Amino acid sequence: MKILHKAYSAIEALAAGTTWPEHTTPLNIRDSGKKQFWPKGFSAGTARAGIKSGKRDLVVITADEPCSAAAVFTRNLCSAAPVTLSKEHLEQSASSMRAIVCNSGNANAATGSKGLSDAKTMAEKTAEVLGIKPWEVLVSSTGVIGVPLPMEKINDALDTFSAVLLEDSCADAAEAIMTTDTFPKFFALDVSLSTRDIRICGIAKGSGMICPDMATMLAFLVTNANISHSLLRDMLSKATERSFNAITVDGDTSTNDMVAMLSRSAGSEEILPGSRDAEIFHTALESLMTFLAKLIVRDGEGATKLVAIRVEGAPSTSDAQKAARTVANSNLVKTALHGADANWGRIIAAAGRSGAVFNPENVSIKFDDLVVLEPGYVSDFSEKEAKKILGRSEYTITVSMGNGPGCAVVHTCDLSKDYVDINGSYRT
Amino acid sequence: MKILHKAYSAIEALAAGTTWPEHTTPLNIRDSGKKQFWPKGFSAGTARAGIKSGKRDLVVITADEPCSAAAVFTRNLCSAAPVTLSKEHLEQSASSMRAIVCNSGNANAATGSKGLSDAKTMAEKTAEVLGIKPWEVLVSSTGVIGVPLPMEKINDALDTFSAVLLEDSCADAAEAIMTTDTFPKFFALDVSLSTRDIRICGIAKGSGMICPDMATMLAFLVTNANISHSLLRDMLSKATERSFNAITVDGDTSTNDMVAMLSRSAGSEEILPGSRDAEIFHTALESLMTFLAKLIVRDGEGATKLVAIRVEGAPSTSDAQKAARTVANSNLVKTALHGADANWGRIIAAAGRSGAVFNPENVSIKFDDLVVLEPGYVSDFSEKEAKKILGRSEYTITVSMGNGPGCAVVHTCDLSKDYVDINGSYRT
Repeated sequence: MKILHKAYSAIEALAAGTTWPEHTTPLNIRDSGKKQFWPKGFSAGTARAGIKSGKRDLVVITADEPCSAAAVFTRNLCSAAPVTLSKEHLEQSASSMRAIVCNSGNANAATGSKGLSDAKTMAEKTAEVLGIKPWEVLVSSTGVIGVPLPMEKINDALDTFSAVLLEDSCADAAEAIMTTDTFPKFFALDVSLSTRDIRICGIAKGSGMICPDMATMLAFLVTNANISHSLLRDMLSKATERSFNAITVDGDTSTNDMVAMLSRSAGSEEILPGSRDAEIFHTALESLMTFLAKLIVRDGEGATKLVAIRVEGAPSTSDAQKAARTVANSNLVKTALHGADANWGRIIAAAGRSGAVFNPENVSIKFDDLVVLEPGYVSDFSEKEAKKILGRSEYTITVSMGNGPGCAVVHTCDLSKDYVDINGSYRT
Repeated sequence: MKILHKAYSAIEALAAGTTWPEHTTPLNIRDSGKKQFWPKGFSAGTARAGIKSGKRDLVVITADEPCSAAAVFTRNLCSAAPVTLSKEHLEQSASSMRAIVCNSGNANAATGSKGLSDAKTMAEKTAEVLGIKPWEVLVSSTGVIGVPLPMEKINDALDTFSAVLLEDSCADAAEAIMTTDTFPKFFALDVSLSTRDIRICGIAKGSGMICPDMATMLAFLVTNANISHSLLRDMLSKATERSFNAITVDGDTSTNDMVAMLSRSAGSEEILPGSRDAEIFHTALESLMTFLAKLIVRDGEGATKLVAIRVEGAPSTSDAQKAARTVANSNLVKTALHGADANWGRIIAAAGRSGAVFNPENVSIKFDDLVVLEPGYVSDFSEKEAKKILGRSEYTITVSMGNGPGCAVVHTCDLSKDYVDINGSYRT
């Protein structure tokens, strides 16, 4: 399977350059199709329902026991029907969630009352097949906006699901939520808590993050750690800010964006707020989510480079974030990155219009270790050396403002002609 | 001259579709090289100083008498040296300005104290040649950021200027301020005031407005109407909001953006605030500026279409502006426009994340006269018909929110692969 091999290479390459936190052990992703990869008690099934012709486009992830659940949703005013429904279900049964159902190829957004009723049908059908309640199901969709879901196909496919739930289906599940992604994104960490080991496993999709406007970003995480839904919610929100929201300007602004997590609490000691275990778990969760977020940028539509924009020395974290996001999302910066052009002027100009407060005269800029701008607008560097760094598939641009303790990192990618190709006729 | 012929075609095509206000008469631009095109008392000289090898890259526009002056500048924190200096000169002599000097090929931005001293030298040298004071000169630059100006070349070229000031040089002046523009942009209107006729003439540049980040937009306007600098300032600010600022998200955020205007007051009756003539003049000025702004979008980097995004029925003007600007600047919308894809879902989703307040269920969307979305998310239209409209070089997308009286129009263009080409290696 070609795309699975692409996933192995991309994920392993990124993992090789990642420092995992203490108490965590990354799993070997090549085992994902051979043995249990999901945390104990979880399984998933996928199908080719025919929404995207011939491709895997439907997935159900489920636990054999009630789970705590938490989720972060898009803030877009025109949020999709499944977002509306999942919010309701989460309010109703945050401590007894059992499954997530998701289709790709159709966002079920801007579909009015029929859309909401279709999302409900997806939850009901999933519940019926699994023998649970509809409100114990989170529903998610991604794909084209404004087209009604092909419900007959989806219902027919869901009918087969009781037979296809597997414990080694993590890569398949990640594949089933892809849209313009070129490879499935998934990873898992084993985490050593004080008295026991648990696992966190996540899948994610999103490929249009090069333009964060409204390309859907989805991530589903599951764990067998025993954790209350309120603690889970706090941790998930915080970790989302520093992972998935640090790869976009406008954060969760798609009509369908959703980061959802289930924790199966049965049979283990609860992780209490403020405990050492809570800290270990949070750190592990954030590093897994950051890893998945970087995978998304790596696979950005038309992207050839993964670039970390690091702003330091800002008066505040908020100033650093403003500057980092504006630089990371500037089309002029992104095209210069694509052309391996050491155009630091575009970087400082983007920072200058970001709303961040700083003194331009104090700014220095580095490409990895190469200083291209020193305070006082002094610029004297080797273009050849700069080209070499900008030719790398992964590097860091550091903007030091010399103005305070504020720091922020945003991951971005270059803007290429392929982006235009991919998005010029996505719908038709 | 090839680019001049391109200018004639582009300007005439746009002018043909323009309704000019009462009391105004558009000039025939083909006369611009033959007879006096500038308002009476104005002239300009251009040179090939060698900043852009072999190309026209330096211009001085001057009046034979003191002028009222007004200008709107970039709000970018990292504004360029000429912006800093021109602000000072404007404070000093807003009622006795005499000239504008501008070079292309180098922005003199992020150049520190040397940059400021170079800008001063440009003003001094221009003043010396014209026999006026340095503070009677506005200075402007556009081009690459972060590289010191080649002052020897500029000084040598300025030395020749007393001999090259011409009254038929409007197209040449417009050419001298081009960077990635593909044709010079200029136009003039004769305006009938109550007791006399006056002329307003403008040149503009800017081609990166497809991505308004920091591609410099410059416009210089001159008139022989007698008008105080304070009234001129008020009119220029208002007209800028509805013209040049209505083709960008962040308005004037480049390091070098500048809209400057000189009015030569000698020998005619003053236009007083609140008078009928003030109204006529303001309307004419705004229509000329809007025309120049649309020319900029028409020539957007890699652009093939000029699209007006019109939002109506918003609770307020501010809501309408937010939505129109967000739609107009969405990469996903722009690529869909490029691919002639009737992807209205991206349009409503962009409006949804814009911060504008509205009820998505009430929204309708039209491409020119073709309704593609009706309230309640009803969408049933001919794809063939839509393709036909989206294939046009100029059309309007109307988003009706059904929510109030707020209305705004923003002009945008499509995002093409050529944009990536142009910006991938602009500097090197």
